[in-house]
Amino acid sequence: MSKGLTKRSENYSEWYNELVERADLAQHSAVKGCMVIKPYGFAIWEKMQRALDDMFKATGHQNAYFPLFVPKSFLEKEEEHAEGFAKECAVVTHYRLKTNPDGKGLIVDPDAKLTEELIIRPTSEAVIWNTYKGWIQSWRDLPLLINQWCNIVRWEMRTRIFLRTAEFLWQEGHTAHATEAEAIEETEKMLGVYATFAEEWMSLPVIQGVKTPSERFAGAIDTYCIEALMQDGKALQSGTSHFLGQNFAKAFDVKFTNKEGQLEYAWATSWGVSTRLMGALIMAHSDDNGLVLPPKLAPIQVVIVPIYKTPEDLAKISEAVNPIFEEIKSKGISVKYDDDDKQRSGWKFAEYELKGVPVRLGLGSRDLENGTIEVARRDTLTKESRSVEGIAEHISDLLEEIQTNIYDKALKFREENTFNVDTWDDFKAQIEKGGFVMAHWDGTAETEEAIKNETKATIRCIPFNSIEQAGTCVYSGKESAKRVVFAKAY
Amino acid sequence: MSKGLTKRSENYSEWYNELVERADLAQHSAVKGCMVIKPYGFAIWEKMQRALDDMFKATGHQNAYFPLFVPKSFLEKEEEHAEGFAKECAVVTHYRLKTNPDGKGLIVDPDAKLTEELIIRPTSEAVIWNTYKGWIQSWRDLPLLINQWCNIVRWEMRTRIFLRTAEFLWQEGHTAHATEAEAIEETEKMLGVYATFAEEWMSLPVIQGVKTPSERFAGAIDTYCIEALMQDGKALQSGTSHFLGQNFAKAFDVKFTNKEGQLEYAWATSWGVSTRLMGALIMAHSDDNGLVLPPKLAPIQVVIVPIYKTPEDLAKISEAVNPIFEEIKSKGISVKYDDDDKQRSGWKFAEYELKGVPVRLGLGSRDLENGTIEVARRDTLTKESRSVEGIAEHISDLLEEIQTNIYDKALKFREENTFNVDTWDDFKAQIEKGGFVMAHWDGTAETEEAIKNETKATIRCIPFNSIEQAGTCVYSGKESAKRVVFAKAY
Repeated sequence: MSKGLTKRSENYSEWYNELVERADLAQHSAVKGCMVIKPYGFAIWEKMQRALDDMFKATGHQNAYFPLFVPKSFLEKEEEHAEGFAKECAVVTHYRLKTNPDGKGLIVDPDAKLTEELIIRPTSEAVIWNTYKGWIQSWRDLPLLINQWCNIVRWEMRTRIFLRTAEFLWQEGHTAHATEAEAIEETEKMLGVYATFAEEWMSLPVIQGVKTPSERFAGAIDTYCIEALMQDGKALQSGTSHFLGQNFAKAFDVKFTNKEGQLEYAWATSWGVSTRLMGALIMAHSDDNGLVLPPKLAPIQVVIVPIYKTPEDLAKISEAVNPIFEEIKSKGISVKYDDDDKQRSGWKFAEYELKGVPVRLGLGSRDLENGTIEVARRDTLTKESRSVEGIAEHISDLLEEIQTNIYDKALKFREENTFNVDTWDDFKAQIEKGGFVMAHWDGTAETEEAIKNETKATIRCIPFNSIEQAGTCVYSGKESAKRVVFAKAY
Repeated sequence: MSKGLTKRSENYSEWYNELVERADLAQHSAVKGCMVIKPYGFAIWEKMQRALDDMFKATGHQNAYFPLFVPKSFLEKEEEHAEGFAKECAVVTHYRLKTNPDGKGLIVDPDAKLTEELIIRPTSEAVIWNTYKGWIQSWRDLPLLINQWCNIVRWEMRTRIFLRTAEFLWQEGHTAHATEAEAIEETEKMLGVYATFAEEWMSLPVIQGVKTPSERFAGAIDTYCIEALMQDGKALQSGTSHFLGQNFAKAFDVKFTNKEGQLEYAWATSWGVSTRLMGALIMAHSDDNGLVLPPKLAPIQVVIVPIYKTPEDLAKISEAVNPIFEEIKSKGISVKYDDDDKQRSGWKFAEYELKGVPVRLGLGSRDLENGTIEVARRDTLTKESRSVEGIAEHISDLLEEIQTNIYDKALKFREENTFNVDTWDDFKAQIEKGGFVMAHWDGTAETEEAIKNETKATIRCIPFNSIEQAGTCVYSGKESAKRVVFAKAY
């Protein structure tokens, strides 16, 4: 076990911070509010990107790139949108530095003041819809299905790596449609893509639903989301898909001629996931020994560690490893042979455990004699000695099994931590303990806010698959048609 | 032929601007100095990225991500570096907007002024070496071989899409080494990667060489570069690789314990290519009909266009196309069947010519009877009727042939436009006409500047493969050991 990694039960938040740093995922940078994503962390993000990008393309989307800067006047055009983001905008006011005339160093050149301030994009609806105005004239130009991968800045004072930083990486899809129905279908489709990605790649079960009006994206008619439960009983919003109606088309005057020859405003959606998913991945599955990675997202899926005393032993083991390595690799599995002799095998075991490598193979001199190999699973921390015969095939199956097992474990955890609650006292008690609390709500913003003020719990979503079942609001006692999901959230 | 595309011979610059816009590659955005990279242009950039990224990884590099913001004090630390970039820095001074108390709209909140201004990265040496300080303690931590793909801002007043914009996309490699020799080897290796990429993927022959001191990257000991010749006789710097010595290690105090137990400053390199390569690709190969793309970078490599009069004809053709389409696709070739009946085949021919699709297949009713298909090459604008039999195999070979042919054509053009010049009058005359002018230079910055002032020509590089051959400086008449490459440049 890694010395010094705080236990989840002792201090979950500390455990997370230490794990992020020690597993070489990311670190706080000296630039306030910003993170450095380290190579190992970035390799996981790249795997996420590739899988998502393939899914976006398979659903007909194309990538493009739009400017980092949003002129202040663009942001102002959609009023709710402007209001929602104004408080977290990084503002560029000057475009030149000059040598300090009073001595060394540089100062901002007062002569290089911009006539209009530029905002670093907190999201790109404004700049993209301003561009779409030139792209959309006729129904033939629709739908327009575009995505961009980029960095975003939303100024934050209290930051948390991957979960809340001033700068982060994300993708943002921005689509334009000829009809309301088609735009709603797109909003739903992309939420489905996110849910599939979370479940099949991240092994992360999610609840799909719609946000209450107070939790909507600024400028949206409806915000759909996927919500996941972390091991400390807090919820994490893992992706959102917005139906924007004609709000941005109206703000930026984007009209098209429909098939009947009439001018209409285009219908819009936007949807995004970010490096926040890295936080979800870490917090959902990892344990006190370190990271637990679903094989599909693990940069190294299998590591082979030789166990030896003398250089002669190592040479013999390496010779035996070679065909095993090649056979595993030929199955498209990412495998590493760690014969670095600056570190002992015990150190390596702990290191790969910390880094969440799904399968570790150990090979010692006795194994050579017996034709065996030790197979250790990161997810269950179990190990067994097996015949070298057919090992690649076994590992290929094992990786799938691990992928499924991690999902099943997370699903079981969520099920055990989802509670139907019907009284206000039970509600308060359960929210304090954590988990998804399914409760009736009267549908008013007042009640929602009162509950938030008293318990810090928010409505994570109104789940799509929730059964219509009349009840009374846990807070106000008024009528309610179905339960919604409450939780404390990241 | 596309109506209205200005001819290169009439106005090369107009031709370029029109082509970029009409082939759907990119456009100026309403945000001053910034471009929008449109889906078709971005698809080419993605292919470039993928190929380069694979080459970086094959040479042992890993990706990571560092902050967008560089605190002013970081930039100041390496003096030459600071001086070199100060004049083009976008500066963030505030982190919040607020509602204008005098009416509608938003204003910058004066209470949200940053205590230290943040520069949008014009390059990341400062922020990365400040981070490396925490990563490098021992020779065991070296070499550190890291790359990042990101956006960059260097404020520009006079912009040109892909060639010079305020914001652009690039990759920047930043490596740290234990010895000077190893860092120099890395600098050379990465220049070689760029040259290989330019030649094998972009079909673009390049000259490899070293910059004169006055053309060096701000903060480098040496800047290596690849230089390509465009069709208008101007040079385009297509990639640079810098040996930074210990400059940044000293500025950011990055020391490591060497094998002998002594503290030493680390040795650095940095290297980058950007969306400027898109400009090089367009200007090197395209013609008056539109884009000419090397097959390896073409988003669509083959397009199949049905030629028909009635819906019945189309149905029959589509049926015949299906197995051809599948066979071509099965060879890993990106193929599109354009059966859109809103456009006529003549319009489609012109459109795919404009967009540089390397091979166009045309199939009409008569072809069905004869078992033939029309194969048109974009690079030579030739076409021939062939038997459908073995067409996929033929196209696979043809794409390779086109890739080579485009390279050979560009190489021939460069050879025909490279001139040895020995007198000042000849020099001036040739520079006016364009091309790479190989001339002797006395090695002084004064002469270099005088030549630039009189002719606008710069020394593109001192080529690595230039033969040592004594001569006299074309300007000063002083001694010179070898010729250098002069040209007007983008």
